[in-house]
Amino acid sequence: MKKDKYEKIMEIARRRGFLWPSAEIYGSVAGLFDFGPLGSILKHNIEQKWRELYLIQEGFYEVETTTLTPEPVFIASGHTAHFVDPITQCEKCGEGFRADHLIAGTLGIAVGGKKIEELTKIIRENKLRCPDCGGNLKDAEYYNLMFKTTIGPGSKRIGFMRPETAQGIFILFNRMLRFYREQFPFGVIQIGRVYRNEISPRQGILRLREFTIAEAEIFVNPKDKSHPRFAEVANEKLAWYPKNEQFKNGKMLEITAREAVKNGYVLHEQLAYYIVRTKQFLESLGIPNDAIRARQHMPNELAHYAIDCWDVEVKTDRFGWIEVTGIADRTDYDVKAHAKLSKTDFSVKVGGENVIPHVIEPSYGIDRIVYCTLEQAYREDSKRTYLAFPKSIAPVRVGVFPLVSKNGLPEKAQEVDRILRIAGFITNYDESGSIGRRYARADEIGTPYSITADYDTIKDQTVTVRDRDSTRQVRVKISELANVLQKLLLGEINLDNAGAPFR
Amino acid sequence: MKKDKYEKIMEIARRRGFLWPSAEIYGSVAGLFDFGPLGSILKHNIEQKWRELYLIQEGFYEVETTTLTPEPVFIASGHTAHFVDPITQCEKCGEGFRADHLIAGTLGIAVGGKKIEELTKIIRENKLRCPDCGGNLKDAEYYNLMFKTTIGPGSKRIGFMRPETAQGIFILFNRMLRFYREQFPFGVIQIGRVYRNEISPRQGILRLREFTIAEAEIFVNPKDKSHPRFAEVANEKLAWYPKNEQFKNGKMLEITAREAVKNGYVLHEQLAYYIVRTKQFLESLGIPNDAIRARQHMPNELAHYAIDCWDVEVKTDRFGWIEVTGIADRTDYDVKAHAKLSKTDFSVKVGGENVIPHVIEPSYGIDRIVYCTLEQAYREDSKRTYLAFPKSIAPVRVGVFPLVSKNGLPEKAQEVDRILRIAGFITNYDESGSIGRRYARADEIGTPYSITADYDTIKDQTVTVRDRDSTRQVRVKISELANVLQKLLLGEINLDNAGAPFR
Repeated sequence: MKKDKYEKIMEIARRRGFLWPSAEIYGSVAGLFDFGPLGSILKHNIEQKWRELYLIQEGFYEVETTTLTPEPVFIASGHTAHFVDPITQCEKCGEGFRADHLIAGTLGIAVGGKKIEELTKIIRENKLRCPDCGGNLKDAEYYNLMFKTTIGPGSKRIGFMRPETAQGIFILFNRMLRFYREQFPFGVIQIGRVYRNEISPRQGILRLREFTIAEAEIFVNPKDKSHPRFAEVANEKLAWYPKNEQFKNGKMLEITAREAVKNGYVLHEQLAYYIVRTKQFLESLGIPNDAIRARQHMPNELAHYAIDCWDVEVKTDRFGWIEVTGIADRTDYDVKAHAKLSKTDFSVKVGGENVIPHVIEPSYGIDRIVYCTLEQAYREDSKRTYLAFPKSIAPVRVGVFPLVSKNGLPEKAQEVDRILRIAGFITNYDESGSIGRRYARADEIGTPYSITADYDTIKDQTVTVRDRDSTRQVRVKISELANVLQKLLLGEINLDNAGAPFR
Repeated sequence: MKKDKYEKIMEIARRRGFLWPSAEIYGSVAGLFDFGPLGSILKHNIEQKWRELYLIQEGFYEVETTTLTPEPVFIASGHTAHFVDPITQCEKCGEGFRADHLIAGTLGIAVGGKKIEELTKIIRENKLRCPDCGGNLKDAEYYNLMFKTTIGPGSKRIGFMRPETAQGIFILFNRMLRFYREQFPFGVIQIGRVYRNEISPRQGILRLREFTIAEAEIFVNPKDKSHPRFAEVANEKLAWYPKNEQFKNGKMLEITAREAVKNGYVLHEQLAYYIVRTKQFLESLGIPNDAIRARQHMPNELAHYAIDCWDVEVKTDRFGWIEVTGIADRTDYDVKAHAKLSKTDFSVKVGGENVIPHVIEPSYGIDRIVYCTLEQAYREDSKRTYLAFPKSIAPVRVGVFPLVSKNGLPEKAQEVDRILRIAGFITNYDESGSIGRRYARADEIGTPYSITADYDTIKDQTVTVRDRDSTRQVRVKISELANVLQKLLLGEINLDNAGAPFR
């Protein structure tokens, strides 16, 4: 059977060390994946790009709050009561199923939003049974998606592994307000692990029980949701898919951010601004414009705390459009809830009056973005398969090879490798197999440049530099190599002005 | 009462945004701390230095495994059975206590290593009661320090939050061996959160329930524990405190790594090599040589899996010498245990025969290193209090100020701030209060350079650059500023050749 793109990419990801199922030697567990050596660098490089945007350019400071969180935080936020899915479990094999999905899949009827009593009634009336073993199904019940544990001895003090980083930021509001010396509005960011105890995740790396999100919580004046730098993004075009177009099965609108705000598709500049920045961020990872769209949440999918929310979606080969970022106006829901339960004053003085800040939240699923980056980088032609990562995020920057593994060439190549390591490059030294095979291996993991030490190297202290995409080569002096590579990787020069032509 | 250094540092850390107790508005929980905006950058900068050492210079690849870990992993490693402390709980108030510590503290007798039955007997015979409320104490029992949860619906599948990152690496051994194309020995690193459900942590940020460790697991040939680059560190002197000196209450030995190996104090070159590298790493964070020592584990503190282990310790004002890094020879204990339980072959071919690799493990407690970095950076003199971080790790690189907040100077300073942001600097723009106060605020958080736009700036497009440590100033052209600051921060130039003298 022909492999689809997802299978091809996951095959490379497994074989070359991007992604591995966790605890594989013990049979692994659905929804848990490890980042292998190349996946880990790729993920860091993507996180670094995200920090360039939010930490450096927007000037929002980052915090690191604990993932293990005391219970009151999620009582206030509503997660203990509302972060639930309806579940039915098999009496015989113990497997659990999303009750509404089971009904929809078996009977073809939409039951989203129905109460558990109604779901149980449908299961009973239609005599539904366990799809895995045919056993009896228990009554539907609410199942909380947070991982629960206890802190310290005994079972008195309950803790949860956080399902989002946002709450850790909200409860720091007063600390951060003082940190910013009462300058308002301000943003706070966090990148970290979050945990969702999915009932039975079946979509590989797209639905995980532990994953990394990058979130910005921007505290704004509820009476002014304009953005001071909106002009920088206003003329940028993007595919918008507002709720009214979705209702009528209409089309995506190719319009500017200014038009999207002016025509009332998106609620205000703050949302539109971060939607455009997200599109630019994804493009910087090599995801093309035509594989990106902003889709507005429909009223029935809008979270109870949000008045408008847009998913920035990326088109994938197997799964179609998938959400990689959600950009929501969370209003004052969370801040108010924490103020109330903790009896803390979370108001801020704005132009003479006290207001409770509203929160604009762009939230990025890093693991999905890693997957989309891999899928978009994938290239195959008659000669080879390779990953055409943008040079700035490729996990291994430089491959270093001796032409043959004899006659002093390995020693020479290792000397070059050491020089590049000292200059701070992540390199990959490889001397096994033919030079053609080594180029192919480097291409497959997206290494932008491959350096080869050949017989001329010993004579004139030059090496060849090969470009991954064009496969063209030039000769560069070893003494200038680190400098030339730095400039090539930053895009400051290209191969034509990097050195002498090869052959 | 006079504050000690710990209190002074924690006061700055809280007030300026380095460290905050987690969930403070809900009363917080012992053993959980958040990194505020400056703490977060400082922590990242330290992690980045660590990666320069292990990822770039040693060439060990990094992985990111899940923190939530299926039970079999910790059955094999022995954590479910042995990662326990003896505990006694109060029947009345529910508080838990380390049973051996309670006995030692109350009766002044050493009971380390005694079984729970013996501890219960001592509690009963001496009629010990709850130190908090005077209530009856329950029988001593073993208390597992791992946070436990369940994965998916029901209670069938148990998961633990990992107490170390190491096991996640061990179980990847075959994957990593293939990744390195069977080149052996090799190292694998990981930086990440770990979790230990301490009974009742009372040492602020030094004993945490959630913290970050940076670990290297180096798989070596059990028959050859020499280190190929030992010559690079052999002549470096260090304070060694071997077990025999500790036995006789002797002294630390100021000897080279070569002497430490040759005289048999340390078991082999592999351990000695990473001990010296750790000392160099700590020095690069500003921790002076005389506040660093390597202390060997005594036989009664050596873990069951180790044949030799050294703590690299840093001297602190309040707590004396504290462990910040442990460097152990874990032998084949873990690899063998996983091979057995998972029925996987973890042997590797070395010079014609199959061996089970031994593991050398340097393990760094990042939170403690952050604390020690803060403590060692702390300076107070008659005029001011400041943090003299090495420039390469200071959280905010540059302060940007208008001399006064009028006459167009704020706009000019903001223009400079924007230029530096675009060049990638983390800056802090500040216009409130006198210029003297703003310098003082910048010094207090360790900002290496402060830029001021004054009236001359408008005339000749130059600004003043002030050095944190000497408080000297020079004038630099705005057009050259980013370049000059870059070189100053890297130590490539100093203030004398950075620009024109000021006044």
